[in-house]
Amino acid sequence: MNKKTNHKTWKDQLHGIIYEADTPIGKIFDVVLLILIVLSIVFVMLESVKGLHDSLYTFLYYGEWVITVFFTFEYIARIITIKKPSKYVFSFYGIIDLLSTLPLYLSFFITGTSALLAVRALRLLRVFRILKISRYIGESNRLAKAIRDSGAKILVFLFAVIVLCIIMGTVMYLVEGEQSGFRSIPLSVYWCIVTMTTVGYGDIAPVTPLGQLIAAMIMVVGYGIIAVPTGIVSAEYASGQKPKKINLNTQVCSNCHTSDHKDGAKFCHKCGEDLHNE
Amino acid sequence: MNKKTNHKTWKDQLHGIIYEADTPIGKIFDVVLLILIVLSIVFVMLESVKGLHDSLYTFLYYGEWVITVFFTFEYIARIITIKKPSKYVFSFYGIIDLLSTLPLYLSFFITGTSALLAVRALRLLRVFRILKISRYIGESNRLAKAIRDSGAKILVFLFAVIVLCIIMGTVMYLVEGEQSGFRSIPLSVYWCIVTMTTVGYGDIAPVTPLGQLIAAMIMVVGYGIIAVPTGIVSAEYASGQKPKKINLNTQVCSNCHTSDHKDGAKFCHKCGEDLHNE
Amino acid sequence: MNKKTNHKTWKDQLHGIIYEADTPIGKIFDVVLLILIVLSIVFVMLESVKGLHDSLYTFLYYGEWVITVFFTFEYIARIITIKKPSKYVFSFYGIIDLLSTLPLYLSFFITGTSALLAVRALRLLRVFRILKISRYIGESNRLAKAIRDSGAKILVFLFAVIVLCIIMGTVMYLVEGEQSGFRSIPLSVYWCIVTMTTVGYGDIAPVTPLGQLIAAMIMVVGYGIIAVPTGIVSAEYASGQKPKKINLNTQVCSNCHTSDHKDGAKFCHKCGEDLHNE
Amino acid sequence: MNKKTNHKTWKDQLHGIIYEADTPIGKIFDVVLLILIVLSIVFVMLESVKGLHDSLYTFLYYGEWVITVFFTFEYIARIITIKKPSKYVFSFYGIIDLLSTLPLYLSFFITGTSALLAVRALRLLRVFRILKISRYIGESNRLAKAIRDSGAKILVFLFAVIVLCIIMGTVMYLVEGEQSGFRSIPLSVYWCIVTMTTVGYGDIAPVTPLGQLIAAMIMVVGYGIIAVPTGIVSAEYASGQKPKKINLNTQVCSNCHTSDHKDGAKFCHKCGEDLHNE
Repeated sequence: MNKKTNHKTWKDQLHGIIYEADTPIGKIFDVVLLILIVLSIVFVMLESVKGLHDSLYTFLYYGEWVITVFFTFEYIARIITIKKPSKYVFSFYGIIDLLSTLPLYLSFFITGTSALLAVRALRLLRVFRILKISRYIGESNRLAKAIRDSGAKILVFLFAVIVLCIIMGTVMYLVEGEQSGFRSIPLSVYWCIVTMTTVGYGDIAPVTPLGQLIAAMIMVVGYGIIAVPTGIVSAEYASGQKPKKINLNTQVCSNCHTSDHKDGAKFCHKCGEDLHNE
Repeated sequence: MNKKTNHKTWKDQLHGIIYEADTPIGKIFDVVLLILIVLSIVFVMLESVKGLHDSLYTFLYYGEWVITVFFTFEYIARIITIKKPSKYVFSFYGIIDLLSTLPLYLSFFITGTSALLAVRALRLLRVFRILKISRYIGESNRLAKAIRDSGAKILVFLFAVIVLCIIMGTVMYLVEGEQSGFRSIPLSVYWCIVTMTTVGYGDIAPVTPLGQLIAAMIMVVGYGIIAVPTGIVSAEYASGQKPKKINLNTQVCSNCHTSDHKDGAKFCHKCGEDLHNE
Repeated sequence: MNKKTNHKTWKDQLHGIIYEADTPIGKIFDVVLLILIVLSIVFVMLESVKGLHDSLYTFLYYGEWVITVFFTFEYIARIITIKKPSKYVFSFYGIIDLLSTLPLYLSFFITGTSALLAVRALRLLRVFRILKISRYIGESNRLAKAIRDSGAKILVFLFAVIVLCIIMGTVMYLVEGEQSGFRSIPLSVYWCIVTMTTVGYGDIAPVTPLGQLIAAMIMVVGYGIIAVPTGIVSAEYASGQKPKKINLNTQVCSNCHTSDHKDGAKFCHKCGEDLHNE
Repeated sequence: MNKKTNHKTWKDQLHGIIYEADTPIGKIFDVVLLILIVLSIVFVMLESVKGLHDSLYTFLYYGEWVITVFFTFEYIARIITIKKPSKYVFSFYGIIDLLSTLPLYLSFFITGTSALLAVRALRLLRVFRILKISRYIGESNRLAKAIRDSGAKILVFLFAVIVLCIIMGTVMYLVEGEQSGFRSIPLSVYWCIVTMTTVGYGDIAPVTPLGQLIAAMIMVVGYGIIAVPTGIVSAEYASGQKPKKINLNTQVCSNCHTSDHKDGAKFCHKCGEDLHNE
């Protein structure tokens, strides 16, 4: 029994370092992890740039491999230190972590997949967990709430905008024709979206007077309706109450992956597992 | 009399399937209709794309005809199953339905009219009727109210913007002249609208230092006044009360096309016609 | 004395027709005036378009002259039917009316001045006077109040934006240099304004990686601060009370050009002049 | 002792002129200073313009030197008239003032540094001190508060937008490839930021149908989320109380550089130094 307890302690310690950020070592681990994530994103980006010195490519190549191997060990450690691995594997971060590691291995078999490593950018969202500054978490909760509350309304709005774009795109296709760059209806609808959202690349632009008149009308309408989603979010956000006090404890149960424990809790409130904080 | 009642039942059953979405068959009919609308819009769009395989054009051509014939039968069914067809024919959806069917027949006589089938996109608005999710309908009602309330103000605002664009467009025409692309006053006014709405294609752009100075001033002003309609809608939306409980019943009277019946109503509250729900 | 009264009546009647819009003839006069203003703006715009048929230019030329002669008579009539002409001549509309008539006469001496006729667009603002729909006037009053209240704040904000644009423009000039189109500091500042306001013509765009990184930062900052003026106007507008009931009377005193009379007033509340309404 | 008092008076008088704006001479000094700042910025900008007459460059060169010498004397005067120079030297304006003077001297040793004089634009912010119009200062305080309060939330938001841009930029790099101008992942991320912020230069634009579809989705999403920071600032600004009465006194203690004295105060409230106002 002694040995088993010992073994359990080793796993539990690793669990605390990897999953939690309350102890100094846990915090250092998370900061190192974040730096490696940022580095690996920079590596993936730089590798796609042409015209750099060959030795840099070699450095990037090996750097990427070192980081990926580290991520692989981290992923395995996350699985073995938790009692119910499926809880982690199928969680949001579990899937992101797998997708961040796999592409480089796949690149042996399929060319170009290494660019998929950009999905690692999603791992950056862990930064909010480490910062643990209540206002950041509180605000993003409140923001998320306002966006969720506005969601249905903004979807209704965007749906109406897209119906409008299909109709006006077709009108512009008929008015301008192919010699102005409006080569097909889907392309005209694309142009209409580019215009309504005020992006305005200018790769396609109306040339005939009638087309320019209609385009001007589309812009003025777009200018008028850009106000609508803004107004919705403003009103929704203003009416939203301050979210309740947020629990900043980062302990995670090594048995069931439950994470919202109270400060000073000694046992998991869900499965009764020892949380191993002394 | 027996036969007449029988005949009435047949029409009434069809009326229930086509106009209402409360029964399983009525719902299936509406979903199939929506899929066909989306398909027909995709067909019209794809047909305008050049460079596809010939067999695809043949498929699109026949597909469009099959859908149009279905829409034609649906339109006729909608007319014969209602007692006062004029109520439907001159309603918003009645006109849209006709305009969605006619262009393909017209394309025998006039070339190019088949592109007008894009008006079918408006039929997509039926989707809100099928979804019948109260928050969607409620929100779009509240949104519509906020936009209607803001309408007069935003019109005053857009009118002032257009007067400003006419004057600044003329000034830019005088300052920049034809060699910079400001070839006429209407074109300069068009450029001014493109700039004020922050679309900025770049097909016409000031070249002289004075022109660029004036353009910079127009942009800063446009940047400042883009706030106005947004502010109006925000304030209007925030002050709007939640709309009253919405009636989600989709029954439509087969005699007078009235649609806002109470759940469980057995007779039309307007003309007394039997609503045929058991 | 009889004759003098008669003479006064003639002037007073004309005054009523020209300045007021409460009588049928006064309303017809204002509508005809508005149509002529719109027509003359269209004429001036069309005249600048190249490649039209010669006979159209001839028509435009004579049409413009006919309208200008009418405007000249109207301007003279406005002066002689008022007892203190200086009250009208130096009012906002008095100056606009003069500037709308003069350029065509000046075009005999100086070429190109006829384009200045676009200032006539400002005369279109009279439309609000004719519409006399209380909500339009009320709304534009409330809007004007919100904009006036926000003015000082938005000026502070725009001043800070311009200081930022000068500094970032200089940085981009140093980073990108002349071969990328950033040919001088003023041009770089112009580019920075084009970018910050999200217009983005694309006639000048960063080419070097460092320049693009800085440009991306400018855009994200611009994206973040576009929220500021919008927020100001929203808050200001929302907090503004509904303006008091608006006086829709359009009577104007023929002696002192005072215009805010009560309905049914028989004498000017400022100078005691007879308002001649029976 | 008499002489020492005299000497002190001379320094104190200069201190009053340079640092304060309550006396007529102090106000004139500040206005002259502002004009010189504006002039020197115009000089630096014009000097970068090619194709001007040679004599103008000579004029600009000497003009810049005259102003810089004046600024040098002003900087020295600011240091010697204050008892604790370090209080000024390391204040915000102290650093700006040094950075505004140094580059021209450095241009003897390093070419191109004279363009750094654009940092002088920051000195323009002194204008708010001279205007001393309470509403300007009050408003900028309230604005600053709203922006500071929104800061954390907007940072969370911008962070999420950048993560989204990295991922979508990589997707576009894979979809569009190099022949469409998406030459590397960093460039694609740059394009994604240009698009999301609705700037849309058009120097890089998707060409393939799939790329255009994804681009359209990015735009619609960008259009929807542009509402978020606006909503935050609006709500924050609307909920902000009016700032307390602002102290418009411009006296600055010649000993400890403290500036928020009450009107009519005779001694510094922090160090007890005589403020020398009679």
